Amino acid sequence: MMTITITAFEASPDRGRGLARDMPVRWALEEAGLAYDVQLLSFAAVKAAEHRSAQPFGQIPTYRDGDLTLFESGAIVLHIAERHAGLLPHDADARARAIAWMFAALSTIEPPIVERSLATLFEQDRAWFAERQAMLDARVRTRLGDLSRRLDDTEWLDGGFSAGDLLTIAVLRRLKSSGLLDEYPNIAAYVARGEARPAFRRAFAAQLEVFERNAAAG
Amino acid sequence: MMTITITAFEASPDRGRGLARDMPVRWALEEAGLAYDVQLLSFAAVKAAEHRSAQPFGQIPTYRDGDLTLFESGAIVLHIAERHAGLLPHDADARARAIAWMFAALSTIEPPIVERSLATLFEQDRAWFAERQAMLDARVRTRLGDLSRRLDDTEWLDGGFSAGDLLTIAVLRRLKSSGLLDEYPNIAAYVARGEARPAFRRAFAAQLEVFERNAAAG
Repeated sequence: MMTITITAFEASPDRGRGLARDMPVRWALEEAGLAYDVQLLSFAAVKAAEHRSAQPFGQIPTYRDGDLTLFESGAIVLHIAERHAGLLPHDADARARAIAWMFAALSTIEPPIVERSLATLFEQDRAWFAERQAMLDARVRTRLGDLSRRLDDTEWLDGGFSAGDLLTIAVLRRLKSSGLLDEYPNIAAYVARGEARPAFRRAFAAQLEVFERNAAAG
Repeated sequence: MMTITITAFEASPDRGRGLARDMPVRWALEEAGLAYDVQLLSFAAVKAAEHRSAQPFGQIPTYRDGDLTLFESGAIVLHIAERHAGLLPHDADARARAIAWMFAALSTIEPPIVERSLATLFEQDRAWFAERQAMLDARVRTRLGDLSRRLDDTEWLDGGFSAGDLLTIAVLRRLKSSGLLDEYPNIAAYVARGEARPAFRRAFAAQLEVFERNAAAG
């Protein structure tokens, strides 16, 4: 059996908070009980031609297993979930609905959250920052309100834990430092349930170890 | 056999340009040669509790086939593509790579494009509009430059036409009125190749007919 190899930043800009996109892939691999190697890349290496042959947009992660190389964290999580137990239900309809939540996490819930993070990173010194941040908070709250109503008092989004929950929780974690999650107690509890899973903890510790080792060496 | 039913706006805000999210679903159904019904909804009905039981975020489209109801256009296209010929390669590795392009279209290429559209719609009268639009154009150009290099002079992204091309082209079409596509001749030609497909033309005509019928009635 070939070893799975993923790529990740050698010095993640999130300072070990598990917000880089290797985190959901590590989590999925841990849920599936799969061993994997990690190839660490500098920012320059991620943008270089060699890496771009596997990742056209110069990002991490990639996933290599034998002859197959994949990019896009959502696609990698789905690939793992389709081939190993623990991340998708067996029933075909339930499986399709779990995959719908994977797409919802990345195409509906995440974009306003990432936009808010980008504004915080790159527009903090612009005259418009405060006014625009209020607009972005409102867009994020619209999504969180909808999600909170759907989640109600259930444990996971649709039956048992699935790759849809994994990606949704990975996306929501970007809001941890914003205080916005605390406005929706059932969402905060849902994220905490995800973070309490042993597979999440192993994945989180593995990416944190990379960050701390690099910081100590630097 | 049950009839597939999708939901769409009775009066699409894009004025029949095929930019609403029923369009990629219609296109996929046409590529797969599947008949379908369309349930048209007002803006109020899309936000109402009944529709939200199928679509938690109050959006279109949904997809209903027998007991299965799905939301998220990407998930619906994947569901169709996995069950019918014409949208995914048979080879398992090539299939995984085509699915990676589906996720890339919606999570990497689309977000800056939608953000640019939202700014044009909602921030046109703000003092910061021109300065910020230049930042957004730069973000869109970064993605288009990467895509243009990967596409090079090939017909489709990875071998034959796939659901990855379908979603990528559907996303790129949002830029048609911006002039940005014309800066990348191979991308403009790629979009035109998609639009020339008979299945695209049938889907486009069907959504345009809805808009024109409603406009005439209004």
